[in-house]
Amino acid sequence: MSPKSGTPKKNLMLFSGRAHHELAEEVAKHLNVTITPQTAHTFANGELFVRFEESVRGTDAFVIQAHTTPINEYVMEQLIMVDALKRASAKRITVVMPFYPYARQDKKHKGREPISARLIADLFKTAGADRIMTVDLHTAQIQGFFDGPVDHLMAQTVLADHIKATYGDADITVVSPDSGRVRLAEKWAQQLGDRPIAFIHKTRDPDKPNQAVANRVVGKVEGKLCVLIDDMIDTGGTIVKATEALLEEGAADVVIATTHGILSDPATERLSQCKAREVIVTNSLPIPEEKRFPGLTVLSIAPMLAEAIQQVFEDGSVTSLFDGNA
Amino acid sequence: MSPKSGTPKKNLMLFSGRAHHELAEEVAKHLNVTITPQTAHTFANGELFVRFEESVRGTDAFVIQAHTTPINEYVMEQLIMVDALKRASAKRITVVMPFYPYARQDKKHKGREPISARLIADLFKTAGADRIMTVDLHTAQIQGFFDGPVDHLMAQTVLADHIKATYGDADITVVSPDSGRVRLAEKWAQQLGDRPIAFIHKTRDPDKPNQAVANRVVGKVEGKLCVLIDDMIDTGGTIVKATEALLEEGAADVVIATTHGILSDPATERLSQCKAREVIVTNSLPIPEEKRFPGLTVLSIAPMLAEAIQQVFEDGSVTSLFDGNA
Amino acid sequence: MSPKSGTPKKNLMLFSGRAHHELAEEVAKHLNVTITPQTAHTFANGELFVRFEESVRGTDAFVIQAHTTPINEYVMEQLIMVDALKRASAKRITVVMPFYPYARQDKKHKGREPISARLIADLFKTAGADRIMTVDLHTAQIQGFFDGPVDHLMAQTVLADHIKATYGDADITVVSPDSGRVRLAEKWAQQLGDRPIAFIHKTRDPDKPNQAVANRVVGKVEGKLCVLIDDMIDTGGTIVKATEALLEEGAADVVIATTHGILSDPATERLSQCKAREVIVTNSLPIPEEKRFPGLTVLSIAPMLAEAIQQVFEDGSVTSLFDGNA
Amino acid sequence: MSPKSGTPKKNLMLFSGRAHHELAEEVAKHLNVTITPQTAHTFANGELFVRFEESVRGTDAFVIQAHTTPINEYVMEQLIMVDALKRASAKRITVVMPFYPYARQDKKHKGREPISARLIADLFKTAGADRIMTVDLHTAQIQGFFDGPVDHLMAQTVLADHIKATYGDADITVVSPDSGRVRLAEKWAQQLGDRPIAFIHKTRDPDKPNQAVANRVVGKVEGKLCVLIDDMIDTGGTIVKATEALLEEGAADVVIATTHGILSDPATERLSQCKAREVIVTNSLPIPEEKRFPGLTVLSIAPMLAEAIQQVFEDGSVTSLFDGNA
Amino acid sequence: MSPKSGTPKKNLMLFSGRAHHELAEEVAKHLNVTITPQTAHTFANGELFVRFEESVRGTDAFVIQAHTTPINEYVMEQLIMVDALKRASAKRITVVMPFYPYARQDKKHKGREPISARLIADLFKTAGADRIMTVDLHTAQIQGFFDGPVDHLMAQTVLADHIKATYGDADITVVSPDSGRVRLAEKWAQQLGDRPIAFIHKTRDPDKPNQAVANRVVGKVEGKLCVLIDDMIDTGGTIVKATEALLEEGAADVVIATTHGILSDPATERLSQCKAREVIVTNSLPIPEEKRFPGLTVLSIAPMLAEAIQQVFEDGSVTSLFDGNA
Amino acid sequence: MSPKSGTPKKNLMLFSGRAHHELAEEVAKHLNVTITPQTAHTFANGELFVRFEESVRGTDAFVIQAHTTPINEYVMEQLIMVDALKRASAKRITVVMPFYPYARQDKKHKGREPISARLIADLFKTAGADRIMTVDLHTAQIQGFFDGPVDHLMAQTVLADHIKATYGDADITVVSPDSGRVRLAEKWAQQLGDRPIAFIHKTRDPDKPNQAVANRVVGKVEGKLCVLIDDMIDTGGTIVKATEALLEEGAADVVIATTHGILSDPATERLSQCKAREVIVTNSLPIPEEKRFPGLTVLSIAPMLAEAIQQVFEDGSVTSLFDGNA
Repeated sequence: MSPKSGTPKKNLMLFSGRAHHELAEEVAKHLNVTITPQTAHTFANGELFVRFEESVRGTDAFVIQAHTTPINEYVMEQLIMVDALKRASAKRITVVMPFYPYARQDKKHKGREPISARLIADLFKTAGADRIMTVDLHTAQIQGFFDGPVDHLMAQTVLADHIKATYGDADITVVSPDSGRVRLAEKWAQQLGDRPIAFIHKTRDPDKPNQAVANRVVGKVEGKLCVLIDDMIDTGGTIVKATEALLEEGAADVVIATTHGILSDPATERLSQCKAREVIVTNSLPIPEEKRFPGLTVLSIAPMLAEAIQQVFEDGSVTSLFDGNA
Repeated sequence: MSPKSGTPKKNLMLFSGRAHHELAEEVAKHLNVTITPQTAHTFANGELFVRFEESVRGTDAFVIQAHTTPINEYVMEQLIMVDALKRASAKRITVVMPFYPYARQDKKHKGREPISARLIADLFKTAGADRIMTVDLHTAQIQGFFDGPVDHLMAQTVLADHIKATYGDADITVVSPDSGRVRLAEKWAQQLGDRPIAFIHKTRDPDKPNQAVANRVVGKVEGKLCVLIDDMIDTGGTIVKATEALLEEGAADVVIATTHGILSDPATERLSQCKAREVIVTNSLPIPEEKRFPGLTVLSIAPMLAEAIQQVFEDGSVTSLFDGNA
Repeated sequence: MSPKSGTPKKNLMLFSGRAHHELAEEVAKHLNVTITPQTAHTFANGELFVRFEESVRGTDAFVIQAHTTPINEYVMEQLIMVDALKRASAKRITVVMPFYPYARQDKKHKGREPISARLIADLFKTAGADRIMTVDLHTAQIQGFFDGPVDHLMAQTVLADHIKATYGDADITVVSPDSGRVRLAEKWAQQLGDRPIAFIHKTRDPDKPNQAVANRVVGKVEGKLCVLIDDMIDTGGTIVKATEALLEEGAADVVIATTHGILSDPATERLSQCKAREVIVTNSLPIPEEKRFPGLTVLSIAPMLAEAIQQVFEDGSVTSLFDGNA
Repeated sequence: MSPKSGTPKKNLMLFSGRAHHELAEEVAKHLNVTITPQTAHTFANGELFVRFEESVRGTDAFVIQAHTTPINEYVMEQLIMVDALKRASAKRITVVMPFYPYARQDKKHKGREPISARLIADLFKTAGADRIMTVDLHTAQIQGFFDGPVDHLMAQTVLADHIKATYGDADITVVSPDSGRVRLAEKWAQQLGDRPIAFIHKTRDPDKPNQAVANRVVGKVEGKLCVLIDDMIDTGGTIVKATEALLEEGAADVVIATTHGILSDPATERLSQCKAREVIVTNSLPIPEEKRFPGLTVLSIAPMLAEAIQQVFEDGSVTSLFDGNA
Repeated sequence: MSPKSGTPKKNLMLFSGRAHHELAEEVAKHLNVTITPQTAHTFANGELFVRFEESVRGTDAFVIQAHTTPINEYVMEQLIMVDALKRASAKRITVVMPFYPYARQDKKHKGREPISARLIADLFKTAGADRIMTVDLHTAQIQGFFDGPVDHLMAQTVLADHIKATYGDADITVVSPDSGRVRLAEKWAQQLGDRPIAFIHKTRDPDKPNQAVANRVVGKVEGKLCVLIDDMIDTGGTIVKATEALLEEGAADVVIATTHGILSDPATERLSQCKAREVIVTNSLPIPEEKRFPGLTVLSIAPMLAEAIQQVFEDGSVTSLFDGNA
Repeated sequence: MSPKSGTPKKNLMLFSGRAHHELAEEVAKHLNVTITPQTAHTFANGELFVRFEESVRGTDAFVIQAHTTPINEYVMEQLIMVDALKRASAKRITVVMPFYPYARQDKKHKGREPISARLIADLFKTAGADRIMTVDLHTAQIQGFFDGPVDHLMAQTVLADHIKATYGDADITVVSPDSGRVRLAEKWAQQLGDRPIAFIHKTRDPDKPNQAVANRVVGKVEGKLCVLIDDMIDTGGTIVKATEALLEEGAADVVIATTHGILSDPATERLSQCKAREVIVTNSLPIPEEKRFPGLTVLSIAPMLAEAIQQVFEDGSVTSLFDGNA
C-alpha cells in the first residue's frame, strides 16, 4: 500500500471495566464483536492497572463500566482505561456508564457542598472522553455537565413495555415516591396511556407533633393498581414506606418500577418483605444472586445499549430510537 | 510610597448594564457606593460598546444586569463589560444576574436541541467571569453548569415573609402549577409552616377525547387559600389556567407568588383579569409602569443582593444569610 | 452491516440562521443541497430556540448566519445552533459569517474598552466552532483572534470585476475615505491595474479655528473617476463626506464600492442623495427593498461561498480560489 | 465597615480527608490551628459526601489526605473536597498528599498503558487544585505532571538524621535494591558523608539456566553495615530479597530506610522475619497497630509538613527548608 | 506570628533576561529596586537554563526581556523564566517586552502562513504569563491576541516631545513610508499640532514598464520638514528610499522617528549615508556602539516603563499615563 | 462530484524543518513520498517565516525537525510550522522530534528552576500538535508531559544490533557512566544477552580530601569489553572520564554507544583522543563532517522513523515494532 494516500477505515472496539462483565458480554454479543482483551489488575495497595492486548490506534472505542460498589474503584478504573486509550491513539472514546455515578449530588443542597456529578463529567473529559452514553439520568440537567455529546438512553421504555404487557388492563395510577419525581411520574402516566398520577408528600404532621415525618398521599389511589416509579432504588427505604402508605390509603396493589437497582443493604430484605406485587429493575447495575428475591424482575438493557452503540458508530440517529426524545 | 513592597488594598466597584438601572442604583445605595460611570451606547447596526470612566485595575468588580427583553442584547452587553474588565486588569469579576437567562433550556427536551443554560455559563466563563451571583434558579442544577463559585440567593424568603405577614392565619395549601414544581411547592410548604400541597396535572382527559388537555388538580384544595407558586411568570398562561382550575375545584382564594416577573405579553392582561387575590413578584427584572396592575405586589431584592455582595467582598459567608441553604 | 469495521462516509449539511435566508438558499442551490430543516423560534421574553429536524451525527456542518440588525440576536442564534450541533455529535462545525460581527472593535481605541472582535471569536470557539469562514474582514488581524482555521474569502474580487467591466477605460484613482484604509486602497489600485491612490485626511484645519474638522484630500483627484472604497458602509456619513470632498477637489466622478452594505439609517437617504454615480455592495448582509435606491448595485457572493464550502468539504484548496491570497 | 475599600485578610484553614486523621491532627497542632469541622460520610452504594461546617470563602485552604488502601476512595474524597472548596470560594487550594498516588505508573512500561500519575495530576487540576505539596516522589519528574507549583518535600532528611544518630560510626555502604534507585542511593551516600554505594542487579543468571532470576550484588558490601534504601515498601518482596542477598555476600548488617511504609500484605510478615536490624519508615501513610512489629521505627513528618504549610501561607521559602533542593 | 490569619503583603520583584541588561538596570533604578539575582547560562548545545537565587513565592513579578537578535533565544529564555516563576509560586507574572517579537506576522499575508504574533501570545500564556506589557505595537490588534490584560505603552510620546522641542517651529509634514502606516502618521500629525500628512505609494509605474517599483509621494512635501515616521526600522531599506523620494520631491529636510531601532545590517550603513537630518529611536532594543552613528539619537523609555510597572504594582492607572489612550 | 456526501480520503504529507534535511529526505525516500515544498527563511532580525507551497487541508501531517544547535531557532521553527498547519486546516499534526529538546531539564534539580521539558510539551500542544513522535527519551516520564499520544521509538535496538554483530562473542559488561543510567544499563544488559553491569560512582573520595571528585567503578570490569552506554553525548566529558576509569580498573576495551550524538565542542576532540575502541551514535541529530572522526560509527534511524510514520498513518501498531515496548 502506498503511504501517500488512502481511504480511512473505521473500526469499533468494545472495552469493559471489571464491574459488570455480564452486561458488556451481552452487549458484545448483540453487536457481534468481542470485548478487546486486556490485562487488568489491582496492586496490593489498591492501585489499579490496565493494558490493552491489541492495538487500539485509530479505533472508535466504547468503554463500558457499571458504577456499583465499590463505586470509586470503578470510576477510577474507567478513567484509567480512557487515559490509556487516549495515549494509545484511539480516535474517539465513548464512555458508556448506564448508571451515572454521583448523579444524586447534582446540585448543592446546602452551602459548601460539592457538585460531584459535574466533577465526574469533568474528570472524564480530562481523562480524554469524547462522549458519554448513559441511561435514565437522575436529572436530565446532568447532560449539560459534560462539555460534549451525551447520548441519554431511556430504559423507561423497556420497563413500561413490561408493565403494559403485564398489567395493561388494570386501573393504573402512577405514583411518585416523593415530591421530586412527580414530573417523571407524569411522563410514565403518558407512556402508560394518560393515567392519573399521585405522589407521597413527606411532611411533619402538624396534628401529631411527636411524630417526626408523615407520608401523606396526595392524589387518589383507592382501589387502584399503583405503579410506584423512580429512577433508582438504593436502600429501598423511601420506596417501601411509599408502598405502605399507598396500601394504607386503600390502593389495590403496588408495582415498583425503577431503572437502576442499586439494592444496597438492606434493600433486598425490605423489598422482599414489603407487600408490593412486583419489583422491576434493569441490569444497568449487576444484581448478584444474593440480592435477588421472588417478585424481583430484572430486564436487560443490553439490546438498547448495543443498538445505540451501533448508531453512534455508523453516524446514525440515536434520537430516532426513542421517538425523538433522546 | 516605595515600589518594593506594601500592603494590598481591596476595592469594591459596582457596574451596571443598561437593562435595569433602578435595581443597580438601589443595590448601590444599600452598599453605600456609587455605580462606576461608563460610556455605553449602541451603534447604528446594533453593536454595543462600553468604556469605563475610571481605573478598574485591581478592583473586586460586581457587574449587575437584568436579563429582560431584548434579552440577547443584555447578555451580550454583560459579556462585553466582563471582557473590558478583564482586559483592564480587574482582580475579580462577579457577574450578578438575578434572573439567569435561558434557564429553562437547561436540558435537551428532545434530541438535537441546545443546552443554552450551560452555553450561557460557558460564555461568561470565557469572557472572564470568576463567579456568578444569581437568584432562585429555575433548577438548582444550573449551578453546576458554571466552572467556579455560584452564589445562589433565595428570594423565596422575601416572598414567603410577605405571605406569612399577610395571610399567616389562613388555611393555606401550597400549589404547584405543574408536575415539575412540586418539589418547590414542598419547600414553600415547609417555609410557611408544614402546610399541605397540591399540584395541577396537565393531561389528556381520556373521558373527553376531543379536549386536548385537562388540568386536573391533584390534592385537596377545597375551601383553602391556595398559594400558587413558581419561579417565574412569563406569559402567564399556565399560572392563570391553574388559578381557574383551583377555583373550579372549590379553592377559597388564590394568591400567586413567583420570584421573576417576566410578564411578557399578554401576562398583564391575563393576570389582571384572573380571579387571583394577589400576584406577588420581585424586582429581579424591571417591571415598567405599563406592566403593572392593581393586585400586583413587587418586592425588592436589592437589600438581599447588597448584603450578599458585601459578604462576598469581605470573604464572609453568603450561606449564613440563608440558614445554610445557599 | 457488520458493526466491527467499515468505511466512513462524509456528509455535508448546510444550516441557516434566520437573518438572511435568501443568501443561504442561494448558496444551497449552488451546492446542490437543501438547507437542513429546523424548528427555530423566539420565546416571548426574547430567548431563542432551535432544534434540527434531521440527524446531524457525524456531519460536516456549515452554519450560515448574516450579522445584521438585531445583531446580538443573530450572534446568539448562531451560538445556540453551534451548541446544538456539538451536543448532537456533528463531526466538524464551520461557522459561516460573511460579515464578522463587532469587527470594528478589534482593539482598544482607549483604555478600559473591550476587544469585542476577540470576544466573538472566543464565544464561537467555546460554543463548539471548529472553523470560521468569513469575507473581507475589517482588519486581517482578526483571523488571529480565532484559535483554529479561518477561511478568509475576498469579495473584493467580485467588486473589482464589476468595476473593471463597467469603468475599465476611465482614468481611475482609488480613494480611501480615511487614513486607516489607504493600504486597502493600494490593494485595489493593484487589482484595477496599477492606478494612483489618494485618501481623505480628517483634520482640524489650523487655518479655520472655528471649524471642527476638515476633510483634506491628499493625492491628485482632479478630472479623475474616483473609486471610493471601504470594507463596509454603515450610516454612510464618512463615505458621503468623502464623496463631497472629492467632487469639490474637481473629481470627474465618484463610484463607491464596499463589501458589506450595513446601510443603517440614514445611509440610504444619504447615499441616494449624494452625487456618486454608483454605489456597489454585496449581499453579505440582507438588503431589503426599503434600503435600496436607484444607483445601488448589489452583487452576490453566494457563488464564492458555495465554492469555498465545497473546497473545505472536499479538503481542497480555498487559497487557490484567490490566487494564493486567502 | 465601609464596603468600598479595605485591607484584605488572609486566613489559613486546614482540611483533612478520612484516611489518616492522626497525621492531620499532628500537623494542626504544630500549626496551632484546628482542622475545619466537616460532615463526611459514605452512602450505601459507596458514593462519598462532604460538607464544610464553617465558611471557607477567601481562605488559603490546605487539604491533607493520605493515599492508603482503599486508595481510590481516598483519591475521590480529596477530589470532592477540592471541588467543594472551589465552589465555596476558597481563595487558594493546596492539595497535601504526602504519598503521591499511582506514582509508580509514571510512564508507559509497555505500549497501551495509562500514565496514571499524570492522570492524577490532571484530575486534581480539574477539580480545582492550585498547588500540590508532596513528599519524596517516586521520580522527581512527576513534579512536571502538574501544571502549577509543586512543593516537593524531602523526608529523606528525617530518615538520614535518625541513621546518622544511630549508626553514625559504623562502616556504612548505601545500597539500592534495584538498578532504578542507584541515583537515590548516591544522594543518600552524600547525605551520610560520602559513603560507597552498591546495588542489586536482578538478572537471569546465565550459569544457572533453570533459575529464573538471580540477585547479583554489584559493589562491595562484605563486612559493611548496609543501609538499604528505597522511596517506599509495598509488599516488601524486593527489599527482603535484597536483604538476603546482602547478608549472603557477607554484609555485617542491614538497615532498611524508606519514606513511605505502604506495608501491604505480607510486608509485615516478611519484614519481621527477615534479618534486617531495623526497618525505618515515616508516617506519610497510616501504620496501624497490626502492621507494626519489633524492629520497625516510625518517624513523623508532621513537623516538616507544618513548617512547609506555614511557609506557603506566609509566602516564605520552602526551598530554604531543604538547603535549596526543594 | 500566628499561622491562622494575617495581613497579606505584596512584593514587587524585577527579573531580567540577558538581552538588554542596561534597560532593565535603568528601569530598576527608577523603581528603586534591584534586579533579582539569578543563575542563567547556555548549555553547549544551546539549551538555556535559569534559576532564581531568592525566593519568589507570592511575588508580583515583572520579567523584562528585549527581543533582539538572536530573537528566538530571547523568546525562549523569557518563556523559561516565566515557567520557573510559575512553578516557584510567583503570585502574578507580567511579561515586559518593549518590542513584541514577530509582530509583523500578525496575519496571513497569503494562504498557509502562520500567525506568529498570535502564537507568541499563546506561548507566553501557556508558560504562565498573566499579563503583557509592551510598547508601540506594530498593529494595535495584537493586544487582542493575548487572553488577558495587555498594557500597551506609547513611546511615540517620548519621540514627539523630542521633535516638538527640536523642530517645533518648522513647517512640518508627517510622512508615512508606505500605505500601511498612514493612520499612524495621522496620529503623529495630531500630536505635533494638526500638521498635514503625506505617504509614499509603492507602485509599478505604468509609464516606465521596465522599472519594477516606483515610490510615488502622495501629498505635498515641497519645502517642508518631513517627519518620516514608522514603528520600527529593521534593515532601513524602505525608510531610506522614502527619504530619497521626499528629497527628490523637494522636501526641505527629513527627520526619521521610530520607536524600535532593530537596525539589522545594513541599516546603520544606509541610514548614516542617507540625507536625513536626524534619525531618532528609543532604547526598546539594545543599540550597541557599532550600530550607532552621528545623527542617531537614542531616547530612553526606561522612565515610562518604570512608571507603568509602578502603576500596575499599585493597582493604579496606566491609561492615565497616556491621557486615556493606553 | 456531488457536494452532499462522499468517502473521505486520507493523505500523508511530510514536512521538514531546516535543521537536518538529510534525515527528512531519507525518511521520505523510505516512505516513497516527497517532502512538501515550502518557503522558509530567516528575517534580518532573526524572526523565522514559513509558507507551504501546496494545499495541506485535511492532511495527516508529519513535521520532522532535529533539535541541534541553534536549538531554540529550531524549536521555534517547528512551532511556527505547526501553527501554519493548524491554521491551514491540516487534519492531524504529528511532531517528529527524534531528539527531544530540553529533555535533561525534566525536573527541578533545585528550587526555583523551570521544568523546561514540560514547557516544550505544552508549547507544542498550544501551537496545535496532536501527537509527538520521539526517540529514546532521556527519561520515559517525559511521555507524560504531553497531553496526548506520544510514540516513543527505541533506537537502542539499532545500536544493540550493531554491537551484537560486531562484538557478540566478547566478554561484555554493560556500564552506566553515572548512577542515573544504571536502569538503562540493565535494559542493555538484557538486550545483549543477560550481561553483567557496572557503573561509575562519582564521589568525593574521603581518603583524598584535596581531590574534588573521584570516579569509582562499582562492579567488576577487569578484563571485560565494557559497553559504555548513555542516551546522549553532549560535550563528552562524563563519558570520556568514565572510559578512563574503566581502563584504569583493567577493562580490556571500551565501546561507547549512545543514541543522540550532540557532540558539542569539545566532544569530537575528547572522543577521538580517548582510548575507546568505537563510538556509536545515530543520525537523530545531524553530524557534520567536521564533527566526525575515525572510530565514530553513525547508524541511521530513518528506516525506523519511516516505518513508525507509516504505522501511524495507517492506524497500525507502533508498539508491535518494538515487541510491545513502545
